[in-house]
Amino acid sequence: MYVGADYYPEHWPEERWETDARLMKEAGLNIVRVAEFAWVNMEPEEGAYRFDWLDRAIETLGAHGIGVILGTPTAAMPAWVADKYPETLAQKKDGTRVTWGMRKNNCFTSGAYRMLSERITRAMAVHYAGNPHVAGWQTDNEIGGHEVCYCASCRRGYQDWLRRRYGTLQELNRAWGTHFWSEAFGTWGEITIPDDAAAHNPSAYLDWRRFFSDLNVEFQADQLRILRKTCPGQFVTHNFMGLFREINYYDLAEDLDFVSWDNYPVHGKPGVPYGASMAADVMRGLKKKNFWIMEQTSGTHGWGTFTRNPRPGEIRKIAYQQVARGADAMIWFRWRACTAGREQYWHGVLGHDGKPLRRYREIKQTAGEYHALAEKIEGTTLKPQAAIVYDYESHWALAAQPAYRENRYHEVLARYYDAFYRAGISVDMIRPDDDPGGYRLVLAPDLYVMPDETAARLAEYVRGGGILLTDCRSGVKDESGLCHERTLPGLLGEALGISIEEYESMPDFEYRMAGANGFDGEWTARHYADWVTPVKAEVLARYGEWHMEAFAALTRNRYGDGYGYYMGTVCGEEAFYDALAAELAEKAGIRPILAPPAGVEATMREGNGRKIVFLVNHTEEEKEVGLPFAGTELISGKKTGMSARLGRYGVAVIEIDR
Amino acid sequence: MYVGADYYPEHWPEERWETDARLMKEAGLNIVRVAEFAWVNMEPEEGAYRFDWLDRAIETLGAHGIGVILGTPTAAMPAWVADKYPETLAQKKDGTRVTWGMRKNNCFTSGAYRMLSERITRAMAVHYAGNPHVAGWQTDNEIGGHEVCYCASCRRGYQDWLRRRYGTLQELNRAWGTHFWSEAFGTWGEITIPDDAAAHNPSAYLDWRRFFSDLNVEFQADQLRILRKTCPGQFVTHNFMGLFREINYYDLAEDLDFVSWDNYPVHGKPGVPYGASMAADVMRGLKKKNFWIMEQTSGTHGWGTFTRNPRPGEIRKIAYQQVARGADAMIWFRWRACTAGREQYWHGVLGHDGKPLRRYREIKQTAGEYHALAEKIEGTTLKPQAAIVYDYESHWALAAQPAYRENRYHEVLARYYDAFYRAGISVDMIRPDDDPGGYRLVLAPDLYVMPDETAARLAEYVRGGGILLTDCRSGVKDESGLCHERTLPGLLGEALGISIEEYESMPDFEYRMAGANGFDGEWTARHYADWVTPVKAEVLARYGEWHMEAFAALTRNRYGDGYGYYMGTVCGEEAFYDALAAELAEKAGIRPILAPPAGVEATMREGNGRKIVFLVNHTEEEKEVGLPFAGTELISGKKTGMSARLGRYGVAVIEIDR
Amino acid sequence: MYVGADYYPEHWPEERWETDARLMKEAGLNIVRVAEFAWVNMEPEEGAYRFDWLDRAIETLGAHGIGVILGTPTAAMPAWVADKYPETLAQKKDGTRVTWGMRKNNCFTSGAYRMLSERITRAMAVHYAGNPHVAGWQTDNEIGGHEVCYCASCRRGYQDWLRRRYGTLQELNRAWGTHFWSEAFGTWGEITIPDDAAAHNPSAYLDWRRFFSDLNVEFQADQLRILRKTCPGQFVTHNFMGLFREINYYDLAEDLDFVSWDNYPVHGKPGVPYGASMAADVMRGLKKKNFWIMEQTSGTHGWGTFTRNPRPGEIRKIAYQQVARGADAMIWFRWRACTAGREQYWHGVLGHDGKPLRRYREIKQTAGEYHALAEKIEGTTLKPQAAIVYDYESHWALAAQPAYRENRYHEVLARYYDAFYRAGISVDMIRPDDDPGGYRLVLAPDLYVMPDETAARLAEYVRGGGILLTDCRSGVKDESGLCHERTLPGLLGEALGISIEEYESMPDFEYRMAGANGFDGEWTARHYADWVTPVKAEVLARYGEWHMEAFAALTRNRYGDGYGYYMGTVCGEEAFYDALAAELAEKAGIRPILAPPAGVEATMREGNGRKIVFLVNHTEEEKEVGLPFAGTELISGKKTGMSARLGRYGVAVIEIDR
Repeated sequence: MYVGADYYPEHWPEERWETDARLMKEAGLNIVRVAEFAWVNMEPEEGAYRFDWLDRAIETLGAHGIGVILGTPTAAMPAWVADKYPETLAQKKDGTRVTWGMRKNNCFTSGAYRMLSERITRAMAVHYAGNPHVAGWQTDNEIGGHEVCYCASCRRGYQDWLRRRYGTLQELNRAWGTHFWSEAFGTWGEITIPDDAAAHNPSAYLDWRRFFSDLNVEFQADQLRILRKTCPGQFVTHNFMGLFREINYYDLAEDLDFVSWDNYPVHGKPGVPYGASMAADVMRGLKKKNFWIMEQTSGTHGWGTFTRNPRPGEIRKIAYQQVARGADAMIWFRWRACTAGREQYWHGVLGHDGKPLRRYREIKQTAGEYHALAEKIEGTTLKPQAAIVYDYESHWALAAQPAYRENRYHEVLARYYDAFYRAGISVDMIRPDDDPGGYRLVLAPDLYVMPDETAARLAEYVRGGGILLTDCRSGVKDESGLCHERTLPGLLGEALGISIEEYESMPDFEYRMAGANGFDGEWTARHYADWVTPVKAEVLARYGEWHMEAFAALTRNRYGDGYGYYMGTVCGEEAFYDALAAELAEKAGIRPILAPPAGVEATMREGNGRKIVFLVNHTEEEKEVGLPFAGTELISGKKTGMSARLGRYGVAVIEIDR
Repeated sequence: MYVGADYYPEHWPEERWETDARLMKEAGLNIVRVAEFAWVNMEPEEGAYRFDWLDRAIETLGAHGIGVILGTPTAAMPAWVADKYPETLAQKKDGTRVTWGMRKNNCFTSGAYRMLSERITRAMAVHYAGNPHVAGWQTDNEIGGHEVCYCASCRRGYQDWLRRRYGTLQELNRAWGTHFWSEAFGTWGEITIPDDAAAHNPSAYLDWRRFFSDLNVEFQADQLRILRKTCPGQFVTHNFMGLFREINYYDLAEDLDFVSWDNYPVHGKPGVPYGASMAADVMRGLKKKNFWIMEQTSGTHGWGTFTRNPRPGEIRKIAYQQVARGADAMIWFRWRACTAGREQYWHGVLGHDGKPLRRYREIKQTAGEYHALAEKIEGTTLKPQAAIVYDYESHWALAAQPAYRENRYHEVLARYYDAFYRAGISVDMIRPDDDPGGYRLVLAPDLYVMPDETAARLAEYVRGGGILLTDCRSGVKDESGLCHERTLPGLLGEALGISIEEYESMPDFEYRMAGANGFDGEWTARHYADWVTPVKAEVLARYGEWHMEAFAALTRNRYGDGYGYYMGTVCGEEAFYDALAAELAEKAGIRPILAPPAGVEATMREGNGRKIVFLVNHTEEEKEVGLPFAGTELISGKKTGMSARLGRYGVAVIEIDR
Repeated sequence: MYVGADYYPEHWPEERWETDARLMKEAGLNIVRVAEFAWVNMEPEEGAYRFDWLDRAIETLGAHGIGVILGTPTAAMPAWVADKYPETLAQKKDGTRVTWGMRKNNCFTSGAYRMLSERITRAMAVHYAGNPHVAGWQTDNEIGGHEVCYCASCRRGYQDWLRRRYGTLQELNRAWGTHFWSEAFGTWGEITIPDDAAAHNPSAYLDWRRFFSDLNVEFQADQLRILRKTCPGQFVTHNFMGLFREINYYDLAEDLDFVSWDNYPVHGKPGVPYGASMAADVMRGLKKKNFWIMEQTSGTHGWGTFTRNPRPGEIRKIAYQQVARGADAMIWFRWRACTAGREQYWHGVLGHDGKPLRRYREIKQTAGEYHALAEKIEGTTLKPQAAIVYDYESHWALAAQPAYRENRYHEVLARYYDAFYRAGISVDMIRPDDDPGGYRLVLAPDLYVMPDETAARLAEYVRGGGILLTDCRSGVKDESGLCHERTLPGLLGEALGISIEEYESMPDFEYRMAGANGFDGEWTARHYADWVTPVKAEVLARYGEWHMEAFAALTRNRYGDGYGYYMGTVCGEEAFYDALAAELAEKAGIRPILAPPAGVEATMREGNGRKIVFLVNHTEEEKEVGLPFAGTELISGKKTGMSARLGRYGVAVIEIDR
């Protein structure tokens, strides 16, 4: 198993490298990512490449049995690039170029930038293709966190992209509904960049987001072509950012060998980091296989301000949470806190003083455990029976038209996701055009952009015995951002057994909600309400207000061999979603691995005939977890009994007896 | 009576038009506004006009007895305009032009834009002058919501406007007080646009607002000239925006046949929509006669987010509130929710599905009632005995110098307006230079810009027996924004019997207030306090603090045959304003029509020998309203007794027996 | 003693001047500042100077025994300057120039502006060098509140400044740590202005702040050269802004005769104006001698909104607070509230009406008292035994990297400063490179930028018997903004007896704190915590949380003959800082003058064999102050007893019997 750190030899005097390599080796690290931001060190002037320093660093590391991942350095252009080719800097809306001095500041349609990016990539690839210490490559860095460019060349690029997508202006005018506000185009050249998401045509905005995503994906593809051709034996990955919405990550992942990602779940006060699990599941879903952690939290971090410090045991716990969700390699960021530049306080395994202290020791312990576990977990992964649809296009479209102010896509998904998490039930995060057939239960919350094929597939899924839940704002739009000319929920009407003729946001008031037909409880509806008429569906929750008596808050509909559920509002109580998750799991016949106490995460990795349960205590209290199976705790090597006891931030890895 | 909808035939396939026209007719609609945003449909390329589609739409409508109002389409320029004449787009402060893709984005001094605007107006006018289905015209759309332009041409326009206003630089330097901060001008060309209201000379800023308002008014005048000449038999109106402050609406209304306006009172949770009434009274005041509703709320609406949905009965109630305040025509916006573009969720009488559902039925009922009432209410209007001065220039000047952070002009007026509303007393909203003589009571709150003639007129009004109230920040400035060199309240000192030597804002503290001399109560003073010395006036309220003992919060002064009241602070309690309204009404001898219970609006339209009382229940509770007169409820046709009972959102229209 | 007002004769008709001069004289005023914003009046066209009006004004004033301070008028350029030389206006980040119409809007590297500034200064100097009424000069106005300019010329100026500072690019690359993010420069011309403090290299940002400060200082130096040469007998000062951080005031003060400053402590509700005292101490520290008040509060003030009105007695009290802290002259701003321009509501001694009312009377009383006191207080100043280090560079660096969101430098200092103030102990505010040897106690909170020499000097200070306290984020950085490669607190480790291996911010949680080893109490730690390991130090406060048990919140360390204290967190309770101040004062052997009751400020001016105690009651309650000495109250001329009684906003000036 690869266990390592992100290392910047160029930050430290060469005479320190040996010490670093030795400390790494002693901690059990066997891989480092290097060169990621070292463009100017490798190409101090245009076309003058210098790899000698990096060769020596790699050699020093290699001598201690440490391999390297090479990052292409194109996320931070040297000053000479900006000075020589000003058009490589992104243009802001105010017409000026971004001031050089940050990373990720380039224009992606700049020919100069793409040329320079290809050249440094090629020079590196040629130089390192045969290096035995080089395990593989990382393209660029965290693609998508870049400046958006509004230059004339990007505008032309967008027009060209639209021409490829729509073929004719007539078709674009139809797809965008340009009969509104006199927006019809007579020539391609008239099309502007919709730079105001709150004011411009939402169909144009959706395509602009697609174009910008494609532009980033193409930029990576340029590098991939070179790396594949020149370095066929070395893997290529990219460090993704988990729940990051700017880029369609499905596209970005497509041609990579595997996905890796950067995990920083330490922000405010300690609490259950649901988000790090959902992010891991999204990452695992990109290529439907396990992933790497390319940057893992090793300390307090931030730019102008920084976060709290991970507490004793927490660094280890954070890493285990990811292994529990499918991480197959663990690389901590960064080896040593840099004394210079914007990330001085993005702390590393070592601090500014370079001494191996508390954080080093905790990582050393963890790395040791991973090497011991490696053989057992190799080839295992999660195999959930439930899935949540995760859709970048709905996310983009909702950002421009959330309908209600509080409608944030990840929060909507989290209401359901977290309830299943609390219940000990894992889910896959899947594409909207994935076949739902492999799952007993599918949730498609806030699936705003829903082409007819998607709606038909989901309806068919229910008819064939699937359990489906969808909710507010789902199915409103077609793929070009036009509203369907149907009464909601459109083509899902039959499967859900409801009709929605009106709806509303609830900016400063709430409704009372009460359960019905065996689904008991009292809750609060807020933010938004569809006025759902139950046509054939059973009502599982109703409203208390006079004008809402005819309408349902939650419905269940028998359709074919399955059930279609609809949740027509946002509920203020977590308990509601727990009850709903229980109802759905029961109807789907899904049973949790075990019943985890509050704050404990439970997952199972399966494969090679093994079933390995991971328990991670996210709290600072000791927890007792009942075990409905016999097994062996792999870190301690001890047989388990009726329950497992987890200390503060404690972890257990239990192989179930066969 | 005209009852209709705003219709966009260009949004729908031609084969749908017949269905729409039939549904309209069945609902009792007899007028639609069309073409308002259809410039590109009528002029797809420069100079190539196409009206055939609109002719057919008008014909289809006309065949069902539905007339049309034509909107000139100049509020949304086609892409070809921006592409061909980039200078038609407004220039932002950062020197770039607004990105095409929104409406109301033009520069008003652009010769190209004014030429194109005149040409499309003339082409439409010539084409439709004789069309029997065309009732009249609407100029542009909601003038004043436009981008402000900072281009060189607008700067020159501003300099020319100043030259016309002041004649000489010497006079401008005097009027603007340019002895401050070395601001004296040596040439007209040195004058800049005061683009920072918080930092530039407030006198320059006030003139800039006047100039911008005039620019908009002139833009409309260009169209009016053409329409008057070419279509003499057709009316011309404009859709105003109620309580909108960017444009001097008195000027904009001057040459129109009547005022119409766009009413959207549904925002947060249900409550009494005082603002919609005050807006109606402002609209009625523009030309001192009844008005039309050109866009009336028919559902939830908004862009990125939208509002709550009007509840059963509420759409009808909203419409009646306007008829009660002088609306003579009711046009709902829009006929059908558009499936494309920025206003996808600005819902219409029909939804995206095009089906006649709940909202259609409610509007149909309302339309039917209006046709039945039409004969009775024709020729009637409100005849208040009290007036509130409503001044755009004070509003503009206060926006740059509110004195205290919470000083928002409409809120200041509303404190008084709402109290009279609750008391069942209607007011007129009048110009500062109107003769107050026709009213028994005049309020001039926050009348910040007060030329000497205005002050003299108001003082004379009191001397002659009028009841006047004014308050904080009134009379501070002359017409060019200079502070009067007099102890406040300046020329009103005699009439009010007070002297104000000092004043202050109260950013984070309050004073206690107690009534005196028969005006009883205890309240809280906040936000601002004039340190009012009662010279001759009686003190009606005092402060509780040691350093404020010598000063009055509220005063009353006998002057000639009238009374001058001064309110020197902002009171935190609604009850205070209710008591003050009662005091003022009593002194003025004004009696309410009846004493409405909380949440019920009561007005009276008079004319042709009839007196018709409107009662509108803005609450969701049933209300009983005592009737001090005998009459007939016109919707039901029943004689009224001692009281009327109004259901949720209920309405009564009672003709008083003669 | 100079007592006066800021006067703008150009704001008023010439026939009013005589009245103003007479009223001034009657109030006891003997000095006015003039001409500060009168550039266009003195140079209506380029090169055409006009001083006749000012000569007459000075003559009128002089005839009443009133001298003048001349302000160079360069803080507000005339319109003709901007119109003729557009490059004199500062360039914004968006590439456009600031719109003319405000003051302090110039580019400081503009050759045209510097030329025009020198010429008007020289013309004034030559004209007024021999004028007997001219006492001295004020350079510009409130230097540092200017627009920051991002033009190409300023960028070149910055590059030149860096070349002078670093000599070689190699040295700059080292000092800035440009190995991070590929930031190494190959030519000086590549260097950009770091215009984003939150994103660019903090080392570059720190130098940019230094450069901008130097630029302002150089601008003043240009004027100083002319004034010194031409007007050798007249003093030169500048009106500083107290706690203003944009400019290194130590540098700006260096070549002036004395410091004067502008004091506006009236903002929200009444309270103890600690800040006005700290500002005074900073001002006194700039040149280590007494200062003038060039603009003193005389009424409510503000631009768009204004403050509360000073209450009876408060104007006098505000002025005494400054005399108590070392003010040797008192000039109120402004003589009369201007009726025009942006500062219409920055009220003066007189209001818009020009009448001598309440504020005039209070200032007249105060002026009279000052003339009576003058002989006694001349030659006296404060002689504190404690000092707080006040460092502009740490302030700048922290602004870009506060570490925790709430880290505001002045607030950090105020926690300690205010506690000593409450204890009746005065402090000096000193430079970081001052010799601490003259003080028994030195505090260096948040001393983020700490070159090795500073650290060594402070450690040596402790060893030699000094009492030192420092706290969080101190000593993190070297002079070029790189983090020291040492375990914190670096070179202070021995003196403080602690080691800090980890630290964190606490964005939304707190820790419990409890006293130890005789330092008793329970408090709350918040915002930030160093995880302080007490190596040799005693623990005076600990944390209550499980993971913080090993770490100290507050430590005391015997080192050589002194004590080093370290405060590792921010405490939520004022009482903690009071206890800490007592502990420090006791260890340092510092005794307060007396024990002031809450809200009373006590200071002592000494000199010429006199000790004069000032007591200022900042509250609206009467206060009784115990007097541990016998003396004479100088305003009343009465002998004091065991205590002094101070009324609301009352003041006592007590000369201690020798």
